Amino acid sequence: MNCSWLRLAGTAAVVLSATAHAQSDPLPSWHDKAAKKAIVEFVKATTTPGNPKFVPLPERVATFDQDGTLWVEHPLYSQFMYVLERVPAVVKAKPELANQEPFKTVMSGNRAALEKLTERDLEILAVATLTGMPVEQFQDEVRGWLAKARDPRWKKPYNELTYLPMQEVLKYLRANGYKTYIVTGGGQDFVRVYAEQTYGIPPEQVVGTAGATSYSYGKDGKPVLTKEAKVVLNDNNAGKAEGIHLMIGRRPHIAFGNTAGDQQMLEYTAGGTGARLSLLVLHDDAKREYAYGPAKGLPDTKVGAFSQALYDEATKNGWVVISMKDDWKRIFAFEK
Amino acid sequence: MNCSWLRLAGTAAVVLSATAHAQSDPLPSWHDKAAKKAIVEFVKATTTPGNPKFVPLPERVATFDQDGTLWVEHPLYSQFMYVLERVPAVVKAKPELANQEPFKTVMSGNRAALEKLTERDLEILAVATLTGMPVEQFQDEVRGWLAKARDPRWKKPYNELTYLPMQEVLKYLRANGYKTYIVTGGGQDFVRVYAEQTYGIPPEQVVGTAGATSYSYGKDGKPVLTKEAKVVLNDNNAGKAEGIHLMIGRRPHIAFGNTAGDQQMLEYTAGGTGARLSLLVLHDDAKREYAYGPAKGLPDTKVGAFSQALYDEATKNGWVVISMKDDWKRIFAFEK
Repeated sequence: MNCSWLRLAGTAAVVLSATAHAQSDPLPSWHDKAAKKAIVEFVKATTTPGNPKFVPLPERVATFDQDGTLWVEHPLYSQFMYVLERVPAVVKAKPELANQEPFKTVMSGNRAALEKLTERDLEILAVATLTGMPVEQFQDEVRGWLAKARDPRWKKPYNELTYLPMQEVLKYLRANGYKTYIVTGGGQDFVRVYAEQTYGIPPEQVVGTAGATSYSYGKDGKPVLTKEAKVVLNDNNAGKAEGIHLMIGRRPHIAFGNTAGDQQMLEYTAGGTGARLSLLVLHDDAKREYAYGPAKGLPDTKVGAFSQALYDEATKNGWVVISMKDDWKRIFAFEK
Repeated sequence: MNCSWLRLAGTAAVVLSATAHAQSDPLPSWHDKAAKKAIVEFVKATTTPGNPKFVPLPERVATFDQDGTLWVEHPLYSQFMYVLERVPAVVKAKPELANQEPFKTVMSGNRAALEKLTERDLEILAVATLTGMPVEQFQDEVRGWLAKARDPRWKKPYNELTYLPMQEVLKYLRANGYKTYIVTGGGQDFVRVYAEQTYGIPPEQVVGTAGATSYSYGKDGKPVLTKEAKVVLNDNNAGKAEGIHLMIGRRPHIAFGNTAGDQQMLEYTAGGTGARLSLLVLHDDAKREYAYGPAKGLPDTKVGAFSQALYDEATKNGWVVISMKDDWKRIFAFEK
């Protein structure tokens, strides 16, 4: 072995590696259009020392809504499916509920009756299925449900219904020093059960609607945290910006949402100094997923209120609108 | 240059480096006694693959109370000093307060009268100095105060009054993959201003007593988060365990506290499965710092209620009691 050759080989390897890095596409499921370009330009500018848009490593915070932004939210949020599908177990443990509303309606499985459940009914169901037990018991119940639950359209586990292009964005941002957070209107304890496995996002980086817990001692004298029917953080709308301050304490530099519940998070992100990017996922692909954005003449629906007002705000403020139809080559990893 | 020699030198460097690592003392300000041994043994066991006490990297969570555990809390918590010292600025902005209690008493500087302030008085002062302004304005005010404020005994900035042995523990745990968190009864927004610079702990790893914020729009149309006089998390006693679940979502494997306000955090930590270590800092060094632990015949005081009951619980449950007098060679970095 010759030392000069060794040095040369070493240099060549470094050059090749840098070239390979520059050539590899971090977002292969995205078409080379405006949305992809905006994301790539943002990442390059904020991570290049000397660039006026450079963001120091500790301040690289990226936030993502979950339902409708990272995975499918139609026809019902997965957590709502959980609440409905937990009812039989709750009724089995407390048989007297079988003849009480709204449990009776849920147990009947009558779809028309189910659709007439009021906000108050849903609250009763949520309290019965999501609270009143130790934190660890709840986590076990969610884990057990996730292993068996299937989406009604694709007949797949929910964690296979994440959007491949968004998974690429998560990895791309993390590879560039961004801390990725979920900021969801869904239950914080619920999403934390699967976020690490599903998105590579650890529990401490999941901000969601959070209930109080209460500290007490079990029969063995050990501490128990019990989930209570009291909301500490309603992580929707203004609550998303407030929740980010409470749980992270830094303003995001990049944020992704898809409905009116994300409006304030996107405004709060865009309102910071320096480089900021707010992006909206537009559901406009009825064939491969769903089309429920009101923009471009698509019909509005109850779930996922991507309103015309939000779309207008996005275009007025220069937020990036991501068209699932036009920007994404593939939507799911299981697609061919 | 000879290639064999290069390889040999490389190998030697690796061996030397590993030896240096094994020989260097991660806790040089600690006497080689039981407390130090317990910490080192815990870290070695939980980070050695194959050891029955091994803890996977993502689960390595360490929590620290701040006042009295990481820095001096006598004669008054620094945040309480802040509240008192902010009063002149508050009165200057609203002159009508000058003749209203408790502002009048604080402005008088009469120490005897100050000591008679009631809980309700303190609450009024806290609301007046800590809330009612945008988050960024509060951060600027705290930053400005910290630059000028001096501890009454050592005449030094508060962030120089951190305990050197605890700074070593923070670095030692982080070097071994532990995420270090502050879990403080103090204000979360207050501590976040200086935690990164003072302890290397970023804002998102500071859990503290937290108030609500409210989202609105400024004159320029940009979002503003205003600090409100409503407590979201009282991060004391049971609130510390509840706050850890809310903000981190994982049970600590190692926790440090010093007063009754830390009892539940230490119990919650010790109550988990696998390797867990709870430690109490005992203030028993009247000469170099303060002696206000009740144990070993020391007098009890109002601040820092390290009660006999807590000490008994610690010894009964095998928690480690750290004697500042006997376990620490040096207390502050500025000591010779």
